[in-house]
Formats: sequence, structure tokens, C-alpha cells
Amino acid sequence: MLVLYDLAAADPDVRFSPYCWRVHMALLHKGLPFETIPWRFSDRGAAEFSGATRVPVLIDGDSVVPDSWRIAEYLEEHYADRLPLFKDEAGKQHARFVAHWIESTVHPLVPKMIALDVLEQLDETDKEYFRASRERRYGVTLEEYVADRDHTREVFSEALAPLRRVLAEQPFVCGAAPAFADYIVFGIFQWARCTSRFQILRQEDGVATWRDRMLGLFGGYAGRFSTPP
Amino acid sequence: MLVLYDLAAADPDVRFSPYCWRVHMALLHKGLPFETIPWRFSDRGAAEFSGATRVPVLIDGDSVVPDSWRIAEYLEEHYADRLPLFKDEAGKQHARFVAHWIESTVHPLVPKMIALDVLEQLDETDKEYFRASRERRYGVTLEEYVADRDHTREVFSEALAPLRRVLAEQPFVCGAAPAFADYIVFGIFQWARCTSRFQILRQEDGVATWRDRMLGLFGGYAGRFSTPP
Repeated sequence: MLVLYDLAAADPDVRFSPYCWRVHMALLHKGLPFETIPWRFSDRGAAEFSGATRVPVLIDGDSVVPDSWRIAEYLEEHYADRLPLFKDEAGKQHARFVAHWIESTVHPLVPKMIALDVLEQLDETDKEYFRASRERRYGVTLEEYVADRDHTREVFSEALAPLRRVLAEQPFVCGAAPAFADYIVFGIFQWARCTSRFQILRQEDGVATWRDRMLGLFGGYAGRFSTPP
Repeated sequence: MLVLYDLAAADPDVRFSPYCWRVHMALLHKGLPFETIPWRFSDRGAAEFSGATRVPVLIDGDSVVPDSWRIAEYLEEHYADRLPLFKDEAGKQHARFVAHWIESTVHPLVPKMIALDVLEQLDETDKEYFRASRERRYGVTLEEYVADRDHTREVFSEALAPLRRVLAEQPFVCGAAPAFADYIVFGIFQWARCTSRFQILRQEDGVATWRDRMLGLFGGYAGRFSTPP
């Protein structure tokens, strides 16, 4: 049984880290049984045995693997008989480009829509940490940071243009079937969906169609992590 | 001998289409001998035998192939014994994502820096066509369109963030050696370089280091197409 340390809100069933979601989906993709341990920002120490100060951290027997990309590489190497996450070196180049695109161009826009909603989901200790650290990073209050989120949603929609074009040609980022590049992108949407009622996609967007397809994978696993009330 | 119909300026040695540059590099990559025929916007009819109203168009014996992506697929299929442009299906997914990213996010920023310089390179008939069609598309004069190009360069630099991250990890977009995804990106820079003295990259940018590496490939082929005086 593998163990995933997984970022959680006050409600331990609310799991919202985009990086942890990559790992959830990768483990399901490989068909590996796993359990998750809810981890909070204030548990910093609890993951330190891994040398990491953040989750995801994967425990597999004596192996302790931090970082979603390293976890994917670890799974690919150690469970090579299972369905591949990358197919081959060229597929890994593809996923790596998608990761860099997500992290530099898409990811930074999401907190400008949902940071205040994330705050509301956290437990009390995490709330203090989250507000202080984010307001220092953004240089404004969280309320100010998300104030113009309708506009941010337009910018976000434009930033998704390459993804939208890919999905107009094929059902998944990776082609006919999903693989790790899909999970990298999906993490962004699950982060928003599990913390906020704000709809970051228009329902008629081809990207939303794909997102719904992702929610249905593996018996509807991701879809059962519910949106906040 | 393959023949490439190639967009040219008033000076027939000035070749500046980003899509045609993909094909130049793809033909060199495959080690196929080719000649180019300079084509101008006002030659519209001259490529129509191909069913295309634009270049690139590649002629290979009885085969007439328009569109840079279709040309790459054609070369891969018909010259399968040569160095691959895509490696495999996963590599093709990678190149396709890069193409969509370039075309939706990066390409539209380039005319906001160089459209007026492109105009100056064209022959008289093309000048009229180019100004009229672009001013209709942009809704402002070309002079107004490029007026704030120092700011556009900042936006352009931010848009290149995923590319910059990839190139911090490896020498080429495709990994240890260049392939079609590199040529897709390179077309953007050759378009600017062959028509404008405006430096769209800072020299210390890792992307500029890669661009210079691309200029040196195949015996410095692309580097010999000179910048305007």
C-alpha cells in the first residue's frame, strides 16, 4: 500500500493541491492501491522526514519521494509494467513542456480568482499562515487580490488557448487516452473546483468538456471530491 | 530535388515567413536537397495549383503539399529512413502542443513589434496589400500598432516563460538535439530577425542563447539569411 501525504482543508475530505492531484491521478492511472494522509500547512514538520517542506510526498515501503514530477518519474521507473505515464522519452518531453506552461502561464492566474475562497476552507492555524504568507507574496490583501476576478477569468481563458486548440483535435492532452500531461493540467481545475464556487470556465468551453471527462475517469474518482457548499 | 515556395520580400533573398522557416529547417534536418522559389503576397495565384492561397507549398515530383504541419507529416512519412522530425506519436503530440502554444500565445505579439519593419521590406505591390489587410485586421494604422513595442517586448518575454524554463534544463526544445518543435519556435525568431533591427530578445535571455544555437545549425544556414541594413 502506497501512502500519499496530501494537502487538506479544515474538512479533511477537502483535498485541493494541484500538485497532489497530479499524484492522485497518476496512482489511479497505474492502478496502484494507495491511502492518503491529510496534511496541513501548519504540519510543516510532519513531512520533513522526507526532506520536503511541502506535499505531495509519496511513501512506498522504504522509499520517500517528494515533488509531483519526481513522484511520476519514480512510479514510471518502479512500476514499469503498469500503464505508462509518459510512454517514452518524447512523451516525457511533452509532459515537461506542459508542466512548464501550466506553472509559468496558467497557475499564477488561479489564486487571483480563488485565493479568498481557499482561505475560507482552511483550518484556523492554516488561515493565519496562508493570509500572512500570501499577502506578503502578492503585496495586497487577499480581498484586493481577487477583487477583479471577472477580468482575471478573461485573461485565464485567453491563456488556455493552446489547450483549447489541442482539445478541439483530440479528447485528451495526450491524444486518444489520458496520461501525465492531462493530470498536470487537471490539477489546476481540481484546485479551483474543490475550494471555490467561482466557475473558472464557461460551461460551453471545450476545456470544460475535457475537465468533465477527467472528473469521470477511474469510476468518477475526482468527481466525488465535492465542491464547497 | 524538392521545391519550396517561400515568402520573400522585395529583395528576393529576404525570406521571412515563420511557417516557411519551419520547412527550411525540416528539409535540412532530413538532409534533403531542395531549392526555393521566392513567392510574394501578390503572387497569390502562383500557388493556387496547390489548392493553397499561402505558402509554404512543397513540391516533390507529383506531390504538392501545402501547410507547414502537413509538410512535416509528409516528409516524415515519405522520408522515414531519414532523421525523424517527431520521433514517434508522443513526439508528435509534443510538437503539436508547442505549435498551438506558439500560434495562440506567442505569434500574435510579434507583429505588434515588427509589422512596420516588415512593411518596409516588401515590394511595392505587396506593401499596398499588406498595409490594407493588416490595418483592417488590427483596426489601427501599422504605425499605431507598433507604437508601444517596448511594452509589447515585456509581454512577449513573459509569454516565453515556459520555453525559457525548458531551455534552462536542456539545450533544445526537444531535448539533447533539435527536432520539429524547435523549428516551430525558431520560425518566430527568424521572422523578426530577417525583417527588423528591433531586438525582440535581450542578449542575456536563455532563449537568445538557444536562438543563436539554432542559427548555427546545418553549417550556419539560417544565420546566413541576414538582418536588414
